[in-house]
Amino acid sequence: MTKLLISSTQNPKVKHLLALQQKSQLRRKEGLIVVEGARELGHCIDAGLKPKTIFYCPALFNIDKLSTNDAQLIEVSQEVYDKIAYRGSTEGVIAIVQGHQLTLNELKLGENPLIIVLEGVEKPGNIGAVLRSADAAQATAVIVCDPLTDLYNPNLIRSSIGAIFTVPCVACSSDECIEFLKTNNITILTAQLQDSELYYNTDMRQGTAIVMGTEATGLTNAWREAADAHIRIPMKGALDSLNVSVSAAILLFEAVRQRE
Amino acid sequence: MTKLLISSTQNPKVKHLLALQQKSQLRRKEGLIVVEGARELGHCIDAGLKPKTIFYCPALFNIDKLSTNDAQLIEVSQEVYDKIAYRGSTEGVIAIVQGHQLTLNELKLGENPLIIVLEGVEKPGNIGAVLRSADAAQATAVIVCDPLTDLYNPNLIRSSIGAIFTVPCVACSSDECIEFLKTNNITILTAQLQDSELYYNTDMRQGTAIVMGTEATGLTNAWREAADAHIRIPMKGALDSLNVSVSAAILLFEAVRQRE
Repeated sequence: MTKLLISSTQNPKVKHLLALQQKSQLRRKEGLIVVEGARELGHCIDAGLKPKTIFYCPALFNIDKLSTNDAQLIEVSQEVYDKIAYRGSTEGVIAIVQGHQLTLNELKLGENPLIIVLEGVEKPGNIGAVLRSADAAQATAVIVCDPLTDLYNPNLIRSSIGAIFTVPCVACSSDECIEFLKTNNITILTAQLQDSELYYNTDMRQGTAIVMGTEATGLTNAWREAADAHIRIPMKGALDSLNVSVSAAILLFEAVRQRE
Repeated sequence: MTKLLISSTQNPKVKHLLALQQKSQLRRKEGLIVVEGARELGHCIDAGLKPKTIFYCPALFNIDKLSTNDAQLIEVSQEVYDKIAYRGSTEGVIAIVQGHQLTLNELKLGENPLIIVLEGVEKPGNIGAVLRSADAAQATAVIVCDPLTDLYNPNLIRSSIGAIFTVPCVACSSDECIEFLKTNNITILTAQLQDSELYYNTDMRQGTAIVMGTEATGLTNAWREAADAHIRIPMKGALDSLNVSVSAAILLFEAVRQRE
């Protein structure tokens, strides 16, 4: 365990961290992700990912409580921390971690898998919130199709409160995902208003994938046609849609209820 | 219908609008609220509230489509609009509206009311998101106890997408609320982890109030003791809590399911 002290915001290691935070292309190229916050980093380490570098501000964070293994530890001044903290919070710890992007074939499905599929969902905050609900419902996986945001976007990690590390999460194309679900005999339920049945009248006890699109445009035809059933949450009020993470939670916990 | 043209950000009417947006005390004192966005303003007018002044940018918003009644219409330049738009969006319309703060006694309970109670929830975005789910589930009311934010906070209105106008919403103390629920024979279900049963094993078909506290501190003892039952959403993963708006949606739609 090596330890370094940095008090200049111009230090190359600080600049590299800032570049990784801001540029998804650089993260992809180097296979690295940035994890901020004690809870998030804890879940990340528990998931078996390896921090390479951990920046911490001793006034804010007690590094001794973290199992840092052979990561490089970098103590930074409050000034440097204020510069690198994208959350404007007082957590005091940010790590650069070796990422591992799961593929469909690496998913362990087990018996009666419960999967959430998100198609074309753009906002990192929404994907993060879905992951948080998927963790609570102990879903088998979240599959993000044709993603417009990378799964290691800092806002996604943050809004998931670390669930990006606790829930198996794959990015792929809709075609790949449909083929994967069909091959594994997983029932495809698409959330849509047209030609649909009420979600609580639908059997979710066998292997089930719940597929959701964006609030604005819904799902593509490929999914509507691949579906075994179309399901809807009744919209009984004046508004016409729910947030995708709220819908995901309602549908996931109906599956939990049916399976108990 | 009078019409005015403003192209200076120093105009007193513009300054008054900005002050109302920023100061909850001023909103309370004058009994006025600020509503931004076409959808939100539509729901507001549908709910019977009266716009006093409507600022709009003709390049962004077609005022002819709005039933403005006898509101003062103020056409503003793009520069002025950019200054007054707190959402940084392109909606093009902001109104000052005569507010009406409902009281407990004004609530129309009907048969088997379904009420969400939020205690001490601080973030306007969370309250707004709960209102959105309450609209979808056609809840009877949302009651905010010991509020730390005013119900006409611009971020609350925004995140509710106008549901603050479609769902009856009351602010009061926890004591007042408990007395109101008891007097009206409404079953009190508190969401809490300790000494609780699974929410889907709880009967919600009669008049029901679902009571939730903050993620951080939960509910006060007054509520725990007033409860007819304690209910919990099973947390099956690694994280230990759900967002309050997600929890509210799961519980509300379980009541919807049971009641159909």
